[in-house]
This record gives sequence, structure tokens and C-alpha cells, in this order.
Amino acid sequence: MVKTRIKKEGQTFPRWFDNIVEQAEIYDYGRYPVKGCGVWLPYGFKIRKYVIEVMRKLLDETGHEEILMPLLIPEDLLSKEKEHIEGFRGEVYWVTKGGQEDLDVRLALRPTSETVISLYESYWFKSYKQLPKKLYQVVSIFRYETKATRPMIRVREVTTFKEAHTLHESFESAEKQVIEAVNIYRKFFETLGIPFIVSKRPDWDKFAGALYTIAFDTVMPDGKVLQIGTVHNLGQNFTKVFEVRIQLANETVDYGWQTSYGISERVIAALISIHGDDLGLILPPKFAPIQVIVIPIFTPEIKKEVLSYAEKIVESLRKEGIRVEIDAREDVTPGYKFYDWEMRGVPLRLEIGKREVKGNTVTLVDRVDKVRKTVKLEHLVNEVLNAMVIVEDKLRKRAWNWFKDKVREARSVDEAKNILKENRGIVELPWCGNEECGLRLEELLEAKTLGSPVGFLEKVEAEGMKCPVCGREAKTKIRLAKTY
Amino acid sequence: MVKTRIKKEGQTFPRWFDNIVEQAEIYDYGRYPVKGCGVWLPYGFKIRKYVIEVMRKLLDETGHEEILMPLLIPEDLLSKEKEHIEGFRGEVYWVTKGGQEDLDVRLALRPTSETVISLYESYWFKSYKQLPKKLYQVVSIFRYETKATRPMIRVREVTTFKEAHTLHESFESAEKQVIEAVNIYRKFFETLGIPFIVSKRPDWDKFAGALYTIAFDTVMPDGKVLQIGTVHNLGQNFTKVFEVRIQLANETVDYGWQTSYGISERVIAALISIHGDDLGLILPPKFAPIQVIVIPIFTPEIKKEVLSYAEKIVESLRKEGIRVEIDAREDVTPGYKFYDWEMRGVPLRLEIGKREVKGNTVTLVDRVDKVRKTVKLEHLVNEVLNAMVIVEDKLRKRAWNWFKDKVREARSVDEAKNILKENRGIVELPWCGNEECGLRLEELLEAKTLGSPVGFLEKVEAEGMKCPVCGREAKTKIRLAKTY
Repeated sequence: MVKTRIKKEGQTFPRWFDNIVEQAEIYDYGRYPVKGCGVWLPYGFKIRKYVIEVMRKLLDETGHEEILMPLLIPEDLLSKEKEHIEGFRGEVYWVTKGGQEDLDVRLALRPTSETVISLYESYWFKSYKQLPKKLYQVVSIFRYETKATRPMIRVREVTTFKEAHTLHESFESAEKQVIEAVNIYRKFFETLGIPFIVSKRPDWDKFAGALYTIAFDTVMPDGKVLQIGTVHNLGQNFTKVFEVRIQLANETVDYGWQTSYGISERVIAALISIHGDDLGLILPPKFAPIQVIVIPIFTPEIKKEVLSYAEKIVESLRKEGIRVEIDAREDVTPGYKFYDWEMRGVPLRLEIGKREVKGNTVTLVDRVDKVRKTVKLEHLVNEVLNAMVIVEDKLRKRAWNWFKDKVREARSVDEAKNILKENRGIVELPWCGNEECGLRLEELLEAKTLGSPVGFLEKVEAEGMKCPVCGREAKTKIRLAKTY
Repeated sequence: MVKTRIKKEGQTFPRWFDNIVEQAEIYDYGRYPVKGCGVWLPYGFKIRKYVIEVMRKLLDETGHEEILMPLLIPEDLLSKEKEHIEGFRGEVYWVTKGGQEDLDVRLALRPTSETVISLYESYWFKSYKQLPKKLYQVVSIFRYETKATRPMIRVREVTTFKEAHTLHESFESAEKQVIEAVNIYRKFFETLGIPFIVSKRPDWDKFAGALYTIAFDTVMPDGKVLQIGTVHNLGQNFTKVFEVRIQLANETVDYGWQTSYGISERVIAALISIHGDDLGLILPPKFAPIQVIVIPIFTPEIKKEVLSYAEKIVESLRKEGIRVEIDAREDVTPGYKFYDWEMRGVPLRLEIGKREVKGNTVTLVDRVDKVRKTVKLEHLVNEVLNAMVIVEDKLRKRAWNWFKDKVREARSVDEAKNILKENRGIVELPWCGNEECGLRLEELLEAKTLGSPVGFLEKVEAEGMKCPVCGREAKTKIRLAKTY
């Protein structure tokens, strides 16, 4: 293992990220002969599994049902909704051969599944009595990225795409679903301790085929913004071309209304990046493959005693469902082990040496701020469970505190420029709502529009303010940032 | 829902299978524009999930670690091991375009991942101290099937492929691994109640690139054989071309030794087919999305009373982790509900009417043989848990009894022919071990060779017998069958 300290601040963050992904054995990236593809390693796979489990739970308990749709989408199916195919045409992988034969119809590797689900919805749903229907799947999707790729953040095989698709009898029902979806994602990111801001993307950057898109963004340690989730109201765009016709209560027939919403492994990139520090990962206990690492410290004389004491402790914690491991290696020092498990983000460490064995105690060390505590053996389980809650809480608070400072208000282009230069993160300006002014701001700030505040989440306070580009009255706010 | 009875015996089985997969809403097949692709529906997805969970548990507790490898395999990587590519060339899907561009190197959709794992093993493993290493993934694989496709049994997107890959320092260690893998699969199929026979495939039908292949076969209700699992000893075939070089304890360096083993959603096809009956599915409780269905039976006067009694029962069972649902529909008769849930394979039914409410009892009905039992409310949880064990047991025994009769011995070609014609299933003959005689038997019997008994599982008793083709002394047995 490479032992160089890894810095997270400022410009060195991308290197920190690539290093930690490799060192902590999360994702083997960069040496596969296809750019933008890699391997989830056992440790990383487990983190990914816990993240997906939280998402599945949130979806299942709100009446979503999991399904699995085909990966291959025939060109004519993918092309049926015109805006959709225009948006994706440049980045679709095409299968053109099967065995030695040329295929009659080219098959796309799914970039997303709106077209497939719409086809099936036209088979499955005929009456409002069957609606609303909420389905989802967790799959790989493919994008032929021409930009520089990056593990989890910009890849060609997105290996962890959760896409939900819902069908409704009315626009109102779909609107309600958008709110439910946003709330599910809020809970999800709260659980991960990932701070976020929710914006309605501008029309020029909505999902191809949607009425509008609401997006979740977070700020990475280098101040650049990462999109970590999107929710789309698709209206009747797909149901019209796929003829998803629904009989309504009043006996008339209308096309159904759809929403879709997705998250990807970018969430894991954010989890790693936002909680980590100079020593490496810090994993919130819920997402830690190892929640507690036990380090026995011994000289040959007391080895047997210390190890058997440590084993007893491991057993008692494991019985409680705590993911605990012991590092009994003898070819490395305790200091090396501390360093190693800190780098891998294990949230709690138990040190067990002569003193502990004698006193029937354990030394409990917290990964976040290295607070040490001597704990009596009989209280150990409770203390560990309690410490896990505290770590989770500390991480969440620390992340939000940092994030809040990364979202700043500006009234003029110069002020905004300065904020993006000095503070990086997100800047929010008054906005007249016109596309030209938005695009002009992107140019002036060399930044991307994240969008505007979402009405059902926050009050827009732009009254009396002026658009910094055209000087007209502001109708809303606009958020811009340098983005991934 | 179609209400026609569905026959399972003899020639009508394929229709039974296609019908039940559709009616029970397991897998939507046959109306997707790409042949051999379909959708796992919520009910089927849950069955699939429980099956995968059992497999994961067996692998995890034997030290296998889950990973996730790329789907896209560049042509030169896939072609490195010559036998391997020869075996797969005819059935690989090729991606040749990204966006509007032609790709420099064609990318295969993984048909299996030996080549990818071997590449990574050459990066990851250098010393015998890191070995043995057991990795696995659960993914989609793709085969450009030209034969007639069939849901789960012969598809182009195999959506549920569990492939394990192991690396060892010696041939002996790999041989041990083959035994472990076979034992894991035995436990797996025991849990599913799927009877099986284990055969060493003949050389002419081993996995492309393997030293040898051991396969699990079962017999479907129409007497045709379905391969449901394979275990391969790969020797050093892949490690040599991928240069997986391992430093050994004696300080020399040698290529590593590999095994791989896989199962697919064919297991689910077998689960459905083998336990089902004329009324539809019968799911072993472990794999049933709904383990207990509660049917309240009431006239308007007693509706409230019956429903509240039923709800109480649902709650008490759910508290115990039993997957229970209530069918309180009022637009269909109890008889219709019985029929509906029987078709979907729910293993236990609770009927609750006036008599039950009065007597503080419940009527418990078993899906396998419709045994009815009046159970006192205070014993309900135990009775249900007990009945689930009994159902599982009955299904397993019934399946094995049927299966045993489907594996028959013959001494002559005529006798074998007769068995395959009358009894279908598998026929076992003495065999000299020569390929010509094996292939000749395939011709004469219009059947496929499954292979020979596996030494570490059963004693081959061929002593004193003659090969029915050449008349020479038999060295082993050969098994043949009509196969899927």
C-alpha cells in the first residue's frame, strides 16, 4: 500500500479521490482496456450494497415495485420520442452484430429506460384503477462519454443506476409524485449525510423528453458541483407516442402521465469525497463494510491473554449485528494498522492492550476526530452502538456546515464572479427568468446553470431585485456553479 | 386472468410453462421487439431475489467475495484464449459504434467473464499468500441464440447469471475448489427442492477453455433435461495467456490455477416447473413472495367482524416475519380467490369465516395436497411456521421421487431407445469411454450426452459390463437424454 498522505483541499482533491478509490480498494479503475469501465472490488462492492439497500427500502416502503427490463433497445423504439433520441443520439452505444451476422435493426445499450417502460405500460395498463403505478430497477446503463472519464463520476458503464418510472391518470397525480420522489431523495441523502441543494433545471438543460427536471446537487471538496439525483415530470410526451391510453373514471380515455427519477453511483463518489479527510475515507457506520476494527496490542508474553480477550469482544459485538473485524497481523505495527484502517474509513477502533485486559476495559477511538475513551467491558455494546450514532451525526453536521458556506448570494455579475473564484461552490443571483440572460450569465461566469429554487421546497425571495444581466425585475433566482 | 386449466404432463408442458409464467406475472416474455429478451415483473422479481439471496449466502459463508466487472469486453481481450473464443465466436453480440463514431476495437457484450477476471488476476495476485481467492458476480450475460428462445430457459439476455471465479496456487487446490463448488450447488438445489444429477461432461461438450466441466442436470415435467449449473476446472489455460504468475512457497514462480462455476435463471424455470401442478405454481415458502394468503369469507352482516379478526391475524403473522397478505376484494367470490392464489403458488391459505371467528380458530389449507386443518388462534403462528416446513419437505420429496424414476439404467441400445421413448428422462449405459462410441450413441438414440458419474460423488459400477456400441469392456457409464 502507498503510504503518502493524501490531501483533499483545493486543486489536489481529484488526485485524493483517485488515490483513495484505489488504496481503499473500492473500485479498480483506469487499467481496463475500455475507457470509463472498471471493477467494483469487494470492499467497494459492500459500500455500494449498503447504499442500494437504503434506496430500496425507501422505495419499497412507498409502494414502488422492483422489476428488471431488457438492456438492448432497438433503434426504432429508442427513436420514437423525438426530443429523447435527439438528447441521447450522440452518446449511445450500438450493437450491430450478433455472432458473424449483421443485425437487421441496431440495438442500443440502454442509456435510460423511458422508452422501454412506455412500451410495456401500453400493454399493462388500461384503466385508472390500476394507477398510480410505481416501478423501478437497479441496472447498468451506458453512455459513450467523449469527455474525460473519472471513476463513478463520469463513466461509460454506469454500473449502479436506480431508475424509477411512474404512471398516473392525471397531471396532478404526476405532480404529487414529483414531490414524493423529491422527498424520498431528501431522506436518502440525509441518511448518507450528503448535503444537497434542490433546483429546477432551466429549460435548456432538462432531461430529453421531460416537461421539467428537478435536480439534486452537492458540492465536492474542490468546490465543484456534482449532480447526484434527478426527478423528471415527463407529462404525456412518451405516453402519446407509445399510446399508453388510460380509461378514466368519467369513462373518457386519455394518455397517461409519467414521471421518472434516477440516482447513480455518483452518490457513492459524493459519500466518499464529502466525509473523507487527509487520512482517507470516513464511512458513516451504516455504509461501512467494517464498522469496528479491533486492534490487539501485545508483546509475546501477553499475546495469548490479549488475543483471547479481543476475540471475546469481537464475538460480543458480532452477536449484536455489528460488523466487526480483528486485525491480528504480527508482521506490522499497531501504528501501521491504525493508519491502514483509518485510510479505509472504519468509523470506530477498539484498542486492546495490557492495560485494557487488566482493567476489564476497552479503548474506543472515533475516526472523525480521534476522540479516545476508556469504556468498561460491561458497557461496551451500548457504547459502540452509541458511538456509531454520534459518528453519523458528526459527519452529517460537519458536511452541512461546510456546504452551507459553499452556497452564496450575489447581486451583481462581478460579485458572483468573485464568489466563484474565491469560495467556489454555488452562487445564487436574481433572475428575470429569460433564457438569454441565463445563458449570458453562464458565459460571463464561465459556469453552468443549476436552475432555480423549487416552489414546494422553499420560498423564492427575489422581490424588488433586478436581473444582473438585463436589469429587468427578477422573477426568481438562478444558481450557477462550476460542475463535474 | 385466463381461467383455463393448464396441463403439465407430457407434450403440453411447454404450453403450461409459457402460460404460468405469464398468468402468475413472473416474466413478461414474447412481446419485446428483441427476441429472447423480457421483463421480470414484480412478483417474479421477488422469487428471483429470494433465489439469489440463498446463493449469495452459500457463497459468502464459504469465503467468496462479491465484485462487479465490466460488461464490455474488447475483441482482443476476449480472443486471447483460443479455445474460448472459438467456443463463443458464433454467439457473441458486438458493439461497433459509439454515438455516430465507429469504434476502433469491437466490444463484445460479455458472454461470460473468464477473460476479464484473468486480466485483473494478473494485476491483483502475485503471491501464493494471497490465494486461494474466490470471487463472484451476479450479472446479465448475452448470447446471440439462433435456436428458438424460451423464457428463462433459452434467452439472449440471461439476466441472472451468477458466475464465480477462483484462483489457486496449485492444481490440487483447484481440484479441492471444484469439490467445494459442487457441494455448494448441491446445497443450493436441495434448498430449492430441485432434484439433480451430477455428471462430468464429455470432452466434446466441456466449457470452451476448460480442462473439464461438471454439470448439474434436472429433468423437466416433459421428460427433457435442463442443465442448471456447471463447474469448470480451467487449469492454467487462461492464466498462461493472461500471464497470471504466482510466486510459490518454494520461491519459484508458476501460472495460477483457476476454476469457474455458474448458475442462471434456468434454476427459476426449474423451480417453477418441477413443483407446479395443473392449478399453477407451487412455491416452496422460502421463495414465495406471499407465503400465506388470508381469505375472509363474509356476508354483509358479519363483514366488519370477520375483517377485523382477519386483520388481527395478518398482524400477528407479519410480526413473526411471515410474508402474509389479505385478499379482501368484494367483487370476486372466495372460490375465485382460492383459484387465483393457488395459481400464483402461495403455499398456505387461511380461510376465515363466521365459524372461525366464533370458535377463535382459523382454517389452514396447504397448497400441495389441499389438506385442511382447523387451528386454534393461540397456536396459529407455530402451526403456520410448521406447515411451511412441511410444504417445503413435501415438495422436495415429491420432486425427488418423480426424478428417481426418470433416471434409468440400460445395457443395450434398444433398451435405451425404449426408455427414452417410454419414460423419457435420462438413460445410463455402460461405456468404453471412447468419443466415437459416445457420439455414435447420440446418433442412435437421437439424444445428447450428459456425461459420466463424478468420482468423488458416486462409485461407478461398470465392472464386467460391455460398451453397447463397440462391445469392448466398459470403463464407466454414459448418460444420455433429450435436452433443452
